[in-house]
Amino acid sequence: MKEECGVVGVLLDDTKSQSKTAALQIYYSLYALQHRGQESTGITVYNGGSTHSLKGMGLVPEVYAREDIVKLVGHVGIGHVRYSTTGQSRIENCQPLIVNYKSGTVAIAHNGNLINGHDLRDELESEGRIFITDSDTEVVAHLLVKELLKHGAVESIKNVMKRLKGSYSLAIMIDDLLIAARDPLGIKPLCIGKTDLGLVVASESVAIDTLNGKLIRDVKPGEIVVLKDGEVESHQVYNTTHAAHCVFEYIYFARPDSVIDGQLVYKVRERIGRELAKEHSVEADIISPVPDSGITSAVGYSRESKIQYQEGLMKNRYIGRTFILPGQEMREIAVRLKMNTIAENIEDKKVVLIDDSVVRGTTSRRIINMIKDSGAREVHARIGSPAIIAPCYMGIDMATREELIAANNKVENICNTINADSLGYLSIDGLVRAIGLDKEDLCMGCLTEVYPLEIPGEKCQCRQTRLNQF
Amino acid sequence: MKEECGVVGVLLDDTKSQSKTAALQIYYSLYALQHRGQESTGITVYNGGSTHSLKGMGLVPEVYAREDIVKLVGHVGIGHVRYSTTGQSRIENCQPLIVNYKSGTVAIAHNGNLINGHDLRDELESEGRIFITDSDTEVVAHLLVKELLKHGAVESIKNVMKRLKGSYSLAIMIDDLLIAARDPLGIKPLCIGKTDLGLVVASESVAIDTLNGKLIRDVKPGEIVVLKDGEVESHQVYNTTHAAHCVFEYIYFARPDSVIDGQLVYKVRERIGRELAKEHSVEADIISPVPDSGITSAVGYSRESKIQYQEGLMKNRYIGRTFILPGQEMREIAVRLKMNTIAENIEDKKVVLIDDSVVRGTTSRRIINMIKDSGAREVHARIGSPAIIAPCYMGIDMATREELIAANNKVENICNTINADSLGYLSIDGLVRAIGLDKEDLCMGCLTEVYPLEIPGEKCQCRQTRLNQF
Amino acid sequence: MKEECGVVGVLLDDTKSQSKTAALQIYYSLYALQHRGQESTGITVYNGGSTHSLKGMGLVPEVYAREDIVKLVGHVGIGHVRYSTTGQSRIENCQPLIVNYKSGTVAIAHNGNLINGHDLRDELESEGRIFITDSDTEVVAHLLVKELLKHGAVESIKNVMKRLKGSYSLAIMIDDLLIAARDPLGIKPLCIGKTDLGLVVASESVAIDTLNGKLIRDVKPGEIVVLKDGEVESHQVYNTTHAAHCVFEYIYFARPDSVIDGQLVYKVRERIGRELAKEHSVEADIISPVPDSGITSAVGYSRESKIQYQEGLMKNRYIGRTFILPGQEMREIAVRLKMNTIAENIEDKKVVLIDDSVVRGTTSRRIINMIKDSGAREVHARIGSPAIIAPCYMGIDMATREELIAANNKVENICNTINADSLGYLSIDGLVRAIGLDKEDLCMGCLTEVYPLEIPGEKCQCRQTRLNQF
Amino acid sequence: MKEECGVVGVLLDDTKSQSKTAALQIYYSLYALQHRGQESTGITVYNGGSTHSLKGMGLVPEVYAREDIVKLVGHVGIGHVRYSTTGQSRIENCQPLIVNYKSGTVAIAHNGNLINGHDLRDELESEGRIFITDSDTEVVAHLLVKELLKHGAVESIKNVMKRLKGSYSLAIMIDDLLIAARDPLGIKPLCIGKTDLGLVVASESVAIDTLNGKLIRDVKPGEIVVLKDGEVESHQVYNTTHAAHCVFEYIYFARPDSVIDGQLVYKVRERIGRELAKEHSVEADIISPVPDSGITSAVGYSRESKIQYQEGLMKNRYIGRTFILPGQEMREIAVRLKMNTIAENIEDKKVVLIDDSVVRGTTSRRIINMIKDSGAREVHARIGSPAIIAPCYMGIDMATREELIAANNKVENICNTINADSLGYLSIDGLVRAIGLDKEDLCMGCLTEVYPLEIPGEKCQCRQTRLNQF
Ligand SMILES: Nc1ncnc2c1ncn2[C@@H]1O[C@H](COP(=O)(O)OP(=O)(O)O)[C@@H](O)[C@H]1O
Ligand SMILES: Nc1ncnc2c1ncn2[C@@H]1O[C@H](COP(=O)(O)OP(=O)(O)O)[C@@H](O)[C@H]1O
Ligand SMILES: Nc1ncnc2c1ncn2[C@@H]1O[C@H](COP(=O)(O)OP(=O)(O)O)[C@@H](O)[C@H]1O
Ligand SMILES: Nc1ncnc2c1ncn2[C@@H]1O[C@H](COP(=O)(O)OP(=O)(O)O)[C@@H](O)[C@H]1O
Ligand code: SF4
Ligand code: SF4
Ligand code: SF4
Ligand code: SF4
Ligand SMILES: [Mg+2]
Ligand SMILES: [Mg+2]
Ligand SMILES: [Mg+2]
Ligand SMILES: [Mg+2]
Repeated sequence: MKEECGVVGVLLDDTKSQSKTAALQIYYSLYALQHRGQESTGITVYNGGSTHSLKGMGLVPEVYAREDIVKLVGHVGIGHVRYSTTGQSRIENCQPLIVNYKSGTVAIAHNGNLINGHDLRDELESEGRIFITDSDTEVVAHLLVKELLKHGAVESIKNVMKRLKGSYSLAIMIDDLLIAARDPLGIKPLCIGKTDLGLVVASESVAIDTLNGKLIRDVKPGEIVVLKDGEVESHQVYNTTHAAHCVFEYIYFARPDSVIDGQLVYKVRERIGRELAKEHSVEADIISPVPDSGITSAVGYSRESKIQYQEGLMKNRYIGRTFILPGQEMREIAVRLKMNTIAENIEDKKVVLIDDSVVRGTTSRRIINMIKDSGAREVHARIGSPAIIAPCYMGIDMATREELIAANNKVENICNTINADSLGYLSIDGLVRAIGLDKEDLCMGCLTEVYPLEIPGEKCQCRQTRLNQF
Repeated sequence: MKEECGVVGVLLDDTKSQSKTAALQIYYSLYALQHRGQESTGITVYNGGSTHSLKGMGLVPEVYAREDIVKLVGHVGIGHVRYSTTGQSRIENCQPLIVNYKSGTVAIAHNGNLINGHDLRDELESEGRIFITDSDTEVVAHLLVKELLKHGAVESIKNVMKRLKGSYSLAIMIDDLLIAARDPLGIKPLCIGKTDLGLVVASESVAIDTLNGKLIRDVKPGEIVVLKDGEVESHQVYNTTHAAHCVFEYIYFARPDSVIDGQLVYKVRERIGRELAKEHSVEADIISPVPDSGITSAVGYSRESKIQYQEGLMKNRYIGRTFILPGQEMREIAVRLKMNTIAENIEDKKVVLIDDSVVRGTTSRRIINMIKDSGAREVHARIGSPAIIAPCYMGIDMATREELIAANNKVENICNTINADSLGYLSIDGLVRAIGLDKEDLCMGCLTEVYPLEIPGEKCQCRQTRLNQF
Repeated sequence: MKEECGVVGVLLDDTKSQSKTAALQIYYSLYALQHRGQESTGITVYNGGSTHSLKGMGLVPEVYAREDIVKLVGHVGIGHVRYSTTGQSRIENCQPLIVNYKSGTVAIAHNGNLINGHDLRDELESEGRIFITDSDTEVVAHLLVKELLKHGAVESIKNVMKRLKGSYSLAIMIDDLLIAARDPLGIKPLCIGKTDLGLVVASESVAIDTLNGKLIRDVKPGEIVVLKDGEVESHQVYNTTHAAHCVFEYIYFARPDSVIDGQLVYKVRERIGRELAKEHSVEADIISPVPDSGITSAVGYSRESKIQYQEGLMKNRYIGRTFILPGQEMREIAVRLKMNTIAENIEDKKVVLIDDSVVRGTTSRRIINMIKDSGAREVHARIGSPAIIAPCYMGIDMATREELIAANNKVENICNTINADSLGYLSIDGLVRAIGLDKEDLCMGCLTEVYPLEIPGEKCQCRQTRLNQF
Repeated sequence: MKEECGVVGVLLDDTKSQSKTAALQIYYSLYALQHRGQESTGITVYNGGSTHSLKGMGLVPEVYAREDIVKLVGHVGIGHVRYSTTGQSRIENCQPLIVNYKSGTVAIAHNGNLINGHDLRDELESEGRIFITDSDTEVVAHLLVKELLKHGAVESIKNVMKRLKGSYSLAIMIDDLLIAARDPLGIKPLCIGKTDLGLVVASESVAIDTLNGKLIRDVKPGEIVVLKDGEVESHQVYNTTHAAHCVFEYIYFARPDSVIDGQLVYKVRERIGRELAKEHSVEADIISPVPDSGITSAVGYSRESKIQYQEGLMKNRYIGRTFILPGQEMREIAVRLKMNTIAENIEDKKVVLIDDSVVRGTTSRRIINMIKDSGAREVHARIGSPAIIAPCYMGIDMATREELIAANNKVENICNTINADSLGYLSIDGLVRAIGLDKEDLCMGCLTEVYPLEIPGEKCQCRQTRLNQF
């Protein structure tokens, strides 16, 4: 599973001081959002008269040299980390996207995926427009600039939002104006915070924490927020009866210490574990997580079931970097390099193994085999999400329907395939309870095959969103 | 003085073979054109279905790994080397520029400068269009794609050419169609050649030589050539009474072994030396060049004057790379690192020192001082071009009028400033004779302050160019 | 605290096959040992006739390209990861050290520190010998080669071991002979394993696990093992009444999934937590670890105390790389970048905070302040080791006596300094119980100021080691 | 043909100033010596208390960042550029070699090759000594340090020189003492100069020129010079009846603007051309060099023969870097990438083609074929050296006897092989006259098969060298 991006925007209160270290604040924030994208990163700032950028392929500490950050003077700016869903690792695709237009410069950092991105691109191409990158972001830039010729910034973004279908959390800088916007269903997270030095918007609240700031609130679905003179000005473009927050942010993507749409991810995961224990109890000796994503749920399962929490697998902390290694043999040894059993903890034990989700089943099978090779008597797989039976169209590159093991197999089959002694998925209702939001406010398209947006060939339970009058 | 770019396009006869090594041919060609740009380079090829590129900052051997070239399969492609005139060394500005539009992909490699580039950009921006790079090339791309929606490739390029004012030699690839075009005055060079494997267009004929090919002819001013099925199809867009070939290609930019618009650069430089000897003869012991650009003219001067050719300066062959070294002190020692006197050859000698041109005069003064410190009795500077008294608007970053020593000083003053015992510039007529083309077919704007195109605030002796009917 | 190194040696059974992929096995092993050194790494293999190496600064995946590993053909080899204790990051210091001598080549990978390294260096220098690196390894190489001129490999290493005082775990390759040796007190870990392809020695058993092998046993203190023809040949050089295994391998350095001298590190840490709970019980709401090193002990403390385990801190998984960022401000924000509080989990709570050790106290203070800022009512620090009151002379760069907070302060003072509500260190006896080995077999020099080896100016309770007769 | 190295040493007069920019002086010098080695480079300086170095693979501007040079504070230092003869491109082999020994630090930069290097290495290895690099320099370091334990610096170097057979020009820094030494036959060049800031020793005088200094004199064969307090102290270790200066320094290696052992290389090459014209006159239209090495001789040949000098080949100035490109096809196109004909200059012409030497004949054949393809009527090859019939044992990697075309073929055969219409080599006596030194003071081993030193299996006309009494 691959998450697309993390975005951040920073506006310093002091627009006059010499230092104007918006870039440094953005840099620290991107560190905190690194888990949302490790392929490329960029920072763009505006300093009174002009826009300057740093960009590159790789991790935050690899791309930015301290000297360069220090030279990137400006009191306002935006930043981005990116995880390619397409595999097209091109420097041209690295964000923020900066475009010059009639009246100045627009910089855009985008997290999400447009369902009608292709159509909009076609439409724009029909006007004779050209595209230099592969990204939806360039589509947004075209639409936005067209509006900016006729309207003010907020009006323009509003008009653009009318055209977009899909998920988007945007940090936009129009010259020195910092604006954030979130799609009408609030699919991807976006929140606002306050630090000693000014205001910040970010994909996750951990970015605000890192700056020693306070989370003010989430950007609302369908809302545009303008950060100006230390104030947060709100424009509710859409009124939405129900949101469609992506459940996988809670299940897997977000950092456990982030608070998204009012819910602490850590707590959600703990409750997922408790729900799972209630739904699929089993007599066992120990509860073991697949680290890191299974840890918190395993703690919850243990607490609910009163069965002892005991780590049976240890994750290599340096393995994050192996994605750069190609080769057949590598893939075979990959699981073993990434994960090791703690044999003594599992020998002769009945193990409940907790993971967040199962996509293709290959990794689960390898892990369970490793555990059995290390002497476990039984392995009972418990999955902190319902079965993934359909693809995501809102920006998550899970797999095709052909590849998704649960799209094509019953639970018993999957259980056999992954070599488990029993297998239990969390129920939809259990998940909803664990998240703690109204079921109608969640996207669960990949779990139910019912999407919150119209997607050709798929069922849809559309949310009622109504454009506000201004 | 900085030259902007070199372009190349290659079309293999065999469009079906597995190898399809257009990229390799382009790569070799770019080696031969490296002197036209050392800042960045790119190659784009088309392989039946799609377009692929390699790009990077630096020299040709630094940017392209052999493996990568080999993987860049395609039977047609274009390439580029670039020398920034603006100092904006951004990877985004690296060419070819590749844009996606309604019906496919357009790749453009451009050498030249648009006088109305800014106006066209304004006009396009007024339509709500956006710009991601700083380059004129993106302007051309916008105009071209607008036309391509309504017209065929040739018609489209013709219509674009009607809008462009300035110098341009273009290699354009529209999907698999390779097209070259040259501005109506033929300011920048562009020629066509044939190799064992197919056809090639290039900024200079040395690229064709390197591929062991034969120069067919120059692209004519105002001509579009389509390379198709091994044939060269010509479309004369403009009929031009007189061209305006840049004289500095002969004086300085081009490689001596290139043939440009029918004239071998080496021979031109040799004749420059002879003319100079006739116009500014002097009694002396030796004729010495400022290497490398003065060498051929010095040989010509020596032959005409019957005074012995003797090298008094030796150039460090590795110094080309020092441009990466910043710092005050460096600039002071720069001349000495770049050039050394051969004291024994100049001691007690009256030296005629030949260089191609004088821009600011600083380097000339340092060199002459070095020669005098090494014991020369007299140094008579002879310059293979008339005095540069005005800027170039067609793509050459010479200097501003304030910086140009000859724009603000008489010859005697300059002679004093550079510490020479006498100073002789080649006359305009001498230069014309040396080049061997009709005076009316040359651009000498920077030497005469009369330009071949209308430029706000400058005198113009415009060429009559008439659009052809098709 | 900085650990010096990880070593590995691999001998394939099939010495004849074409593939001879010892390098690949070493490469995977070094991945598993990466936590023991991130500064530089090297691999050396022997292929019938000659010795070849790859080396470089940085992490394992950064230094080795797959192609290069594949080309490094050989059936036997050794590898190394290094963490500089001296701050001298020079490529020359990168191991294995390869030396040519009269009869061939010796390659050495070394983990440990010689107490008499300086004296031996002086002695060797007095003979007119020269040193190219700063390392003890070069000292060992000199001594070994001197012996090899007169004796066989085992005899030679035996004679060298007679000269060395300090800690050392060595993987040595003399041409194609793979030998491992461990100091008479077994201070640093070293173990032997068997894989499908052959034999392996490594600093930690996780390297063997990663190769899907089985741990055979530890190399014994004072033992030389020769790996030959698939057999492990043992030579007990020293008979030791008591070993002196470094307790900090269990407390902090080693991976929790490693088994060292018969004890699973994970279990030791869990018992440390239990002991700590017994010794320093406190009424509290939650038990929280300082991740990652405090996690396992916190689980143990929770189980013993029956107080709920709840994570209050989240560690940024990508921060490992920030050590490359210099600068004042960085250090201040460093803790916040590395660690974030999960406010909801700790608000209004009495928190027992478990960490492995306290060196200077600075980091502890910053973390406790963060936790209190996030609303914790009380923070009770519990440390999984006795107070560190003296430096280590056996290879661990802890700090000087001046810097060690516990060397100069009473517990109350420390408690105040770090802003905790109470502070409890594990007792010496508790630690010994947790480790599960005889107290007399442990080194606890830095905790007791009594060292297992004679060190000028320090107290010593020397172990009785007796040289074996052969 | 590959030259091994360039060395430099700098001692500033002002040993106290804050700046202490010996490193910067060395850096500039290495630029000037870059033609003597492009594989790796290093600088070592001493600053009152300790020795610091910068080293790396690649060209001078690639290895040294300006900041690093500035930080390398010291008033005395040595530097090196290296061209591997062995193909072993290892960072370990990069010089200066810095060794620590009993009383301090010795740094050595070495140009040359020891004939008894292998024997000395064996001898040292028999003492149990170890070698970390492949270089003769480490042999010298061992011998020197052995002496330094018993004797002063000069006495020690004297004693070392008694042991060395072969060519060596050494810059040695023993703590802050800068010493240069040259082998008793003065095979490799080494000279002394004075700048505004202090003293300098260097392989070629161009390094001194670059620092705006004055050449004082060459280091004499068998001489040790100590640079101290701004003075040059001489110790003549050996009295030599006759030197054996390598003739190929004049013919090919050295920069034309260098003065070596009293002779300006440029003048030597010009006289070589004149001698060649006298010995092998031919009726022809033009004299053309193979650039760059043939240029000066072609000028001389033209002047003597009164036949016009006309360039028929143009060299690509950027091709120096292609050595990094491997691959079959590359080698075939290599000559064409490196060299282009100026067809117009040679069409229908009888061409005398001047090159410095012929090794294998392959390149000559390719060049002559290119010239004929471009329309030359006849090509008469004239070579500025006698035929190379034997290998060099003093540090130049020419080729094996099997590969040397002239070792196995008569002149007519060679002429046929390279496809020339006639072929003339310079005579031994002609070369001696051109150089202008006593025949007995030259090494011409590779031309005559009689070497100035005893080499097993080769004839020797040994020079009488007598050790001085001190
Ligand atoms: N692969 C691994 N998985 C889990 N823990 C590990 C791993 N490798 C090392 N460790 C443990 O991590 C701890 C050090 O990590 P941590 O406490 O996060 O860093 P530090 O305190 O040095 O900043 C050590 O106790 C070590 O045993
Ligand atoms: N800075 C320099 N300027 C001119 N010639 C140089 C310089 N440095 C080295 N040379 C000369 O260049 C010659 C080698 O160049 P060239 O003949 O072009 O290369 P190749 O080694 O391929 O034959 C040598 O004779 C050397 O003396
Ligand atoms: N800084 C962090 N600390 C702890 N967990 C994190 C952090 N950042 C991301 N995560 C969590 O790590 C999990 C993914 O890690 P893991 O399961 O080890 O990787 P994988 O993608 O291979 O399954 C996600 O659930 C994410 O919430
Ligand atoms: N491959 C080449 N061989 C010889 N001359 C070249 C080559 N490429 C470019 N030149 C010539 O070199 C000259 C520029 O070199 P030079 O005078 O040394 O540099 P500059 O004056 O720009 O410092 C130009 O006149 C150009 O025609
Ligand atoms: S389909 Fe699944 S992954 Fe995609 S947004 Fe909805 S819940 Fe998230
Ligand atoms: S103005 Fe000068 S440099 Fe510019 S195109 Fe004309 S002649 Fe060339
Ligand atoms: S002194 Fe401490 S750190 Fe050092 S070896 Fe002994 S227990 Fe380990
Ligand atoms: S043998 Fe030839 S190349 Fe070697 S030193 Fe003598 S003259 Fe020079
Ligand atoms: Mg996971
Ligand atoms: Mg020039
Ligand atoms: Mg820790
Ligand atoms: Mg040559």
